[in-house]
Amino acid sequence: MRKIHVIGIGAGDPEQLTLQAVRALRSTDVFFLLDKGEVKSDLTGLRRDMLDAHIPEGTYRLVEARDPERDRTAGGAAYSPAVGDWRSARADIYERLITEELGEDESGAFLVWGDPSLYDSTLGILEEILERGAVAFEYDVVPGISSVSALVARHRTGLNRVARPVQITTGRRLSEGFPEGVDDVVVMLDAQQTFRQYADQDIDIYWGAYIGTPDEILASGPIAEAAPRIERLRGEARERKGWIMDTYLLRRHPAAE
Amino acid sequence: MRKIHVIGIGAGDPEQLTLQAVRALRSTDVFFLLDKGEVKSDLTGLRRDMLDAHIPEGTYRLVEARDPERDRTAGGAAYSPAVGDWRSARADIYERLITEELGEDESGAFLVWGDPSLYDSTLGILEEILERGAVAFEYDVVPGISSVSALVARHRTGLNRVARPVQITTGRRLSEGFPEGVDDVVVMLDAQQTFRQYADQDIDIYWGAYIGTPDEILASGPIAEAAPRIERLRGEARERKGWIMDTYLLRRHPAAE
Repeated sequence: MRKIHVIGIGAGDPEQLTLQAVRALRSTDVFFLLDKGEVKSDLTGLRRDMLDAHIPEGTYRLVEARDPERDRTAGGAAYSPAVGDWRSARADIYERLITEELGEDESGAFLVWGDPSLYDSTLGILEEILERGAVAFEYDVVPGISSVSALVARHRTGLNRVARPVQITTGRRLSEGFPEGVDDVVVMLDAQQTFRQYADQDIDIYWGAYIGTPDEILASGPIAEAAPRIERLRGEARERKGWIMDTYLLRRHPAAE
Repeated sequence: MRKIHVIGIGAGDPEQLTLQAVRALRSTDVFFLLDKGEVKSDLTGLRRDMLDAHIPEGTYRLVEARDPERDRTAGGAAYSPAVGDWRSARADIYERLITEELGEDESGAFLVWGDPSLYDSTLGILEEILERGAVAFEYDVVPGISSVSALVARHRTGLNRVARPVQITTGRRLSEGFPEGVDDVVVMLDAQQTFRQYADQDIDIYWGAYIGTPDEILASGPIAEAAPRIERLRGEARERKGWIMDTYLLRRHPAAE
């Protein structure tokens, strides 16, 4: 039976690999690296460096493929179907890789930035392939340090306050309103800097980009004060590198306090 | 200047240590181990085993202290003040440990189960000590695999569904109602098995106890079907070991689907 490891490799710092992840890397015959093309190949380079650092050369094969293009122009209500189409296109590619590139008794691995449980499609795609029934395999999941954990560690703060909840959501959701029932909100996948929408409220932001890499940038403070600074840092970094990965925590001071 | 590492050591599996955590362990002169007394000394044993596995004997000192008793009888509105008192009592102990047991140029470490950012008081306590101003130190935070990440990895599922939010909350909060605006909810610190309150709804539960340890127990399914099973497993395990650490994800099927 083919085996697949879905390995969380941390937010960008190669030292954030767990011992379990290193062991899984070493037991892998074939790594599947999906390249989004363009400048994000920086990220593919980082993954290659991790393999070089932890596995003897010549003990594994590397199979690279191109991620399908995602229709990011589809907004609003069309968002989920567009994601669904993209996921099926991706499942086609993964299925082909597993079928053609992985021998019956071999182990393959997908390397996932951060933690495979947060805003990553790999597990859903593997389940979709298994449901199709054309190829059989076992798989396991190696948890990783998410960009969320890495962000707050660098800011030396917690995700939640004592006995209170925290929500993890997307920029798109945040643009529809501050989530109900929580004062601590982590925002991912926000290309629009939606935090600016809340600059008139008593909210602190803890922001970070390229967390754990040599390019890491951190900024924090009340949104009103920090937003222009973040906007400038973000713009400059994006210009310089051609892409940006950032995330942030919003911490609202409840009126009652 | 004294240095303190706050090190996330993962949910229980010693392989969940990151390379960064191992490096921090090796650069530590003094480990502060706080024992909650009673049967939880199992956990102290696990931490000692981690040190034995990764650091040469004789290169560090181990300082053990007793955690203050927490007044768990204070319910409802009194909860937060009780936590506050307990935290200050803990800060007294930590302050004494840092002042008396750590030399001016030494590094100390607190080992935190899971990730220091989730429902852990260590960072708040260190800030409280710094504010008091009696002892000065630098500190950094090493993120760890949280029990939340470990739980969903073992269940091979994600925390969030595509483009949707997830909330992490407490059993106490869940007893006040299902959180608004989310269908995926992770519940921690729930001694009351509050999920039973939602057995009449179309919700799946992914539950785990002692995750990543040899005692690990997993169960999942629709709450109505899984709740009695979890109740039994939980009761037996608690009886056998004298304590339990568990957490779970609730996944509600939206009426619209």
